[in-house]
Amino acid sequence: MDTEHSTNPFAAGAAYVDGRITPIAKAKIPVTDWGYRRSDVTYDVVGVYHGAFFRLDDHLARFRASMGKMRLEPGESDADIARILTGLVRRSGLREAYVAMDCLRGRPAPGLPYHPAYGRAYLVCYAVPWVWLFTPEQQARGVHAIVAKTPRIAPESVDPTAKNFHWGDLTRANFEAHDAGAETAILTDGNGLITEGPGFNAFAIIDGTVVSPHQGALEGITRKTVIELCGLLDIPCEVRPLTVEAFEDADEIFLSTTAGGIMPVSRLGGRILGNDRPGPISARLRETFWARRAEGWHATPIDYDASVEPALA
Amino acid sequence: MDTEHSTNPFAAGAAYVDGRITPIAKAKIPVTDWGYRRSDVTYDVVGVYHGAFFRLDDHLARFRASMGKMRLEPGESDADIARILTGLVRRSGLREAYVAMDCLRGRPAPGLPYHPAYGRAYLVCYAVPWVWLFTPEQQARGVHAIVAKTPRIAPESVDPTAKNFHWGDLTRANFEAHDAGAETAILTDGNGLITEGPGFNAFAIIDGTVVSPHQGALEGITRKTVIELCGLLDIPCEVRPLTVEAFEDADEIFLSTTAGGIMPVSRLGGRILGNDRPGPISARLRETFWARRAEGWHATPIDYDASVEPALA
Repeated sequence: MDTEHSTNPFAAGAAYVDGRITPIAKAKIPVTDWGYRRSDVTYDVVGVYHGAFFRLDDHLARFRASMGKMRLEPGESDADIARILTGLVRRSGLREAYVAMDCLRGRPAPGLPYHPAYGRAYLVCYAVPWVWLFTPEQQARGVHAIVAKTPRIAPESVDPTAKNFHWGDLTRANFEAHDAGAETAILTDGNGLITEGPGFNAFAIIDGTVVSPHQGALEGITRKTVIELCGLLDIPCEVRPLTVEAFEDADEIFLSTTAGGIMPVSRLGGRILGNDRPGPISARLRETFWARRAEGWHATPIDYDASVEPALA
Repeated sequence: MDTEHSTNPFAAGAAYVDGRITPIAKAKIPVTDWGYRRSDVTYDVVGVYHGAFFRLDDHLARFRASMGKMRLEPGESDADIARILTGLVRRSGLREAYVAMDCLRGRPAPGLPYHPAYGRAYLVCYAVPWVWLFTPEQQARGVHAIVAKTPRIAPESVDPTAKNFHWGDLTRANFEAHDAGAETAILTDGNGLITEGPGFNAFAIIDGTVVSPHQGALEGITRKTVIELCGLLDIPCEVRPLTVEAFEDADEIFLSTTAGGIMPVSRLGGRILGNDRPGPISARLRETFWARRAEGWHATPIDYDASVEPALA
């Protein structure tokens, strides 16, 4: 779609902000909101590909679980959220979209105690054109990564399974990568175990087995999909502790995220993996992933011709 | 000032958002901005009391240092920021104000790599009516606190000396306090040492010496002021490791923050300190703090009658 010349005011993206629908350019939050000011917010992101959500119910369930862990209770039910997201994509007309749902704490009304228990949680959702965490070119030749010196925030301090915007460590690691001429970074737990990176889960392929860390990381829905794909393709797959040494010596490495699917790594620090190209098992998983997606695997199609419910979106 | 019936559109607060002046109610940031979406932002807060900033230069210097640590370089100089903040307070007419300055990462423009090195940093500043972290009543009878089970985010992951919105651990600790019938929480480093709490530094008075933790906490400007006050009053003061055991056995405990000054603690978990009232040294420090403030100590008076520079604020 040519968004620049479209007459649809939602072509660049559509948002739902605490009950109101708005073009994405006007979707804003108060600078005084604790969702920003204390990063007291959880979120999720679901992809739309070929006009259909991927694993919508899984994302809604994880979002609800994240809200529960952070004691955030907005007024909208899961069915409401599904309707809101569908309406946003429909309004935008986007066939490939990045669809976010945030639940913010708000802040206590004047007169109430200055404590998060007195916030009024509310939702911000939006659909924008698809975002690649790494470009298709980077994915085709393999991403260049490092293992960062900055350790991941410990799960005891901030629960990584409740998806959050506490990216200070991930951003610092991203700058380490940038300074080293790489594109991204994978973080350890500070005790020699691999966790995750800025926006993705990490995998190593060791002696034919696909391995992903057992803790210290988001329970990624694309990661879950990788595990299913391994089952379908008869590739051994284990979720278990993954040491930095084993990771650096792996036969192949790849990353997974909603914003990119399965993304092979061709360089890790000074090491060139394979022939500086995606490894064969990573490439097979990636190809199978997109082939299945094209076939409608785990898809919830969007009816773009339906009327948009005025009450919700 | 009666903000509800004022004809001044800035009476409830005035903001500067990336070069534009707006009433606080319209001061908003895009939901897609990494300052929100990755909490990739640093900030500072300076207080205005009796029409004068307190330690303005110290806050500006710390803000600049925080921005440097996070590689954020907005276009405004320190002199620009001082003019902006002064203009905001002047417009609001507030004699007692909470004045915030944030520097956000922005996000990479379309076509640039999806990496923080390609963001365009910008400032959001605002002045709003004074906010008490704890009410004057709570301060007079002593704050009720606990030592939280949730440990503070480690400095290796996120540098606490660059003031940031990574409050997930602090919020979780605040809920622990709420569940225990207390009002706030002090966090440890996970290894038996006291760090800080949600929005404040912590102090213990042990055998007549005022002690504050040496690391794992913000280098608070009110904390710095406490250390100066101890010097003026000939009270021994040490910045050194402070164990949970020593903290729990302390003769007195108090907290310090821009949003409240010096705030005595009268209960810590199940323990009642003194006679369930602020201790004598804490009370003396608090009284001296406010008496000095009233005398114009470290004050930068605001000329409310000056014309507001249209170019900045």
